[in-house]
Amino acid sequence: MTITEPATTNAVGAFARGIVDTDIHERAELPALLPYLDPKWHFYITDAGWIPDRLIPYTQPLVGGLDRADAKLSDGRPGGSDLDMTRTQLLDECGISRGILTGWLDASALAPGWPEFKTALMTAYNDWELENWVEKEDRLFASIHVNVHDPAGAVREIDRLGGHPKVVQVIIFSGSVALGDPIYHPIYEAAQRNNLVVGIHHSENSPTTFGFHRYFIEWHTTVPQVFMSQAVSLIFNGVFEKYPELKVIMIEGGFSYVPHLMWRADQQYRELRAEVPWVKREPSRTIREQMRFSTQPVEEFTGKQLETLIGQMESDELICFSTDYPHWDFDNPLEALPRDLPESLREKLYVENAEALYEKLPKTVTAGHA
Amino acid sequence: MTITEPATTNAVGAFARGIVDTDIHERAELPALLPYLDPKWHFYITDAGWIPDRLIPYTQPLVGGLDRADAKLSDGRPGGSDLDMTRTQLLDECGISRGILTGWLDASALAPGWPEFKTALMTAYNDWELENWVEKEDRLFASIHVNVHDPAGAVREIDRLGGHPKVVQVIIFSGSVALGDPIYHPIYEAAQRNNLVVGIHHSENSPTTFGFHRYFIEWHTTVPQVFMSQAVSLIFNGVFEKYPELKVIMIEGGFSYVPHLMWRADQQYRELRAEVPWVKREPSRTIREQMRFSTQPVEEFTGKQLETLIGQMESDELICFSTDYPHWDFDNPLEALPRDLPESLREKLYVENAEALYEKLPKTVTAGHA
Repeated sequence: MTITEPATTNAVGAFARGIVDTDIHERAELPALLPYLDPKWHFYITDAGWIPDRLIPYTQPLVGGLDRADAKLSDGRPGGSDLDMTRTQLLDECGISRGILTGWLDASALAPGWPEFKTALMTAYNDWELENWVEKEDRLFASIHVNVHDPAGAVREIDRLGGHPKVVQVIIFSGSVALGDPIYHPIYEAAQRNNLVVGIHHSENSPTTFGFHRYFIEWHTTVPQVFMSQAVSLIFNGVFEKYPELKVIMIEGGFSYVPHLMWRADQQYRELRAEVPWVKREPSRTIREQMRFSTQPVEEFTGKQLETLIGQMESDELICFSTDYPHWDFDNPLEALPRDLPESLREKLYVENAEALYEKLPKTVTAGHA
Repeated sequence: MTITEPATTNAVGAFARGIVDTDIHERAELPALLPYLDPKWHFYITDAGWIPDRLIPYTQPLVGGLDRADAKLSDGRPGGSDLDMTRTQLLDECGISRGILTGWLDASALAPGWPEFKTALMTAYNDWELENWVEKEDRLFASIHVNVHDPAGAVREIDRLGGHPKVVQVIIFSGSVALGDPIYHPIYEAAQRNNLVVGIHHSENSPTTFGFHRYFIEWHTTVPQVFMSQAVSLIFNGVFEKYPELKVIMIEGGFSYVPHLMWRADQQYRELRAEVPWVKREPSRTIREQMRFSTQPVEEFTGKQLETLIGQMESDELICFSTDYPHWDFDNPLEALPRDLPESLREKLYVENAEALYEKLPKTVTAGHA
């Protein structure tokens, strides 16, 4: 989005505790992970040329590809590679007082094969992220990556890092498996035990209903289906009854589908709940109690339109602002949400809803760097 | 739904021209088609045991399976097998003055293999439908079935029957292909040439984002994705610019997803339209001008909720009532749409929108049978 006013009008001062950004993509290239990776796996990266499998048959057809053109580094590295640039372009310029890193390279989005290697790679990624980003910048908090295709390994990783004061979330990039299956339940149990939110993010390996259509615009328009399907899978497989303290946030799919999802799921629950007797609540209630949705990419709503949508959800606590920095469809907080919303509602969307979700985020914010 | 008042309060008299039902499933078992099928194919049904392929891994977990229990015949035949029962249970009881047959056994939902056989089977089905249903009952109008996997055969069938005064629609049951692909465009050209609506209906071979989840309730909750994806495919592959007179109706997916689809598609169009330069209009405008949506299974809305939803679509001409008789989640017109809507809007939804869509429907209705 275009910045039409000086960023300072929107900076931390606009809200007493600044803005919380729930989706910031830092990025490690594979060689950077080697110092953190068990040496027995190095060969596959250094010599055998392993790269993450990628199902999407197109690139992102923008001037900077996946990234904002101005977020790419002059040395050719992709956006999100550099902490200082992220501080300048995002945290300082946009008044982000607390940001959740969501990363790149998530084993859960990859094919299930070779699980031990990928679990080790996630451990390396998490250690790299903590040492190079989170422990160097007070305003940044960690999502840890796990390999859902190795549930026992995922649980070990959650228990290894869950106690870190700046680890707030377990993130799962969706590939092509429905995450409500009981084989994944130990992961949610571990997240609940460690008081971590579970974030679900789509990936370039997320199919939509007919797989990958002919054009990127088709796939990108239908991406919210990934989130609807994961929500339905979690709800009807009883994940939220089984783990009543679990909170799940859907990241980077927007939120305009939520009223439809609530209505449709409630209707089907009323008619078909005998099939899933372990589900004790109407899905819309489960969503209100245990699910949240990040904003980006938010459609261009007027304040009245957005208030209507929020009214349809019957809760103003479900939506958490996100920028998706440094990607091409980055939402600048200056413009993402309409200015003609009541100020108390804007503060919920930009600040308070995320604070309520991520309980480990500090409420007393000290601006500046570590 | 439960009938809470005598049906007469809702009969034809409620609207001057009665109700239009845009989704009635008549049904032919395979042996009934043999008299209409080229004899060279009989062997495969009578001796080799061909049955339609079916991907869904569950049955519909209701007391009557796919059907309303009271719509099944005492001799064991499924609902929709008998014209007289359909007259009594649906047309007479519910005040349906004009109904669009949508059928069963649609080759487009089946695997692409063996196209000539399936094209011949659709010809047989269409002739059976016209002779046994449409030509015996003034109130019933035909959708003709085609095999999209044999586009040239589909075009021949459309041109063969398109001039029949009671053929109003080409129906395509969605399997797993995205229908915007140019290989299917001759079908839309033929429909436009014959002044026929194209109806798209899901099927038990329609996957959703993660294929077929563990439970029927999951699949059935996510079925609207099939319609969102087909809409996106048709829109961004330029079908509506190429065939500006074409009208497409999405049948049996409800309509509560439409505002989300419009917002999301418009947003993506603004950002990514360089990829699809043949698309000249915002998708929401294309939807308003060339797409319609049948109601069933409609969520339980209040009048105010439904008016809000229609307001979000920026048109009250997009929704056409349907019952889905004789299936288990049949919507009775007595209860399907809220009674506290303005009467002029109710008449649009129950009568006028479908009359505007299906131009071949008579506006002067003569009640009773042929």
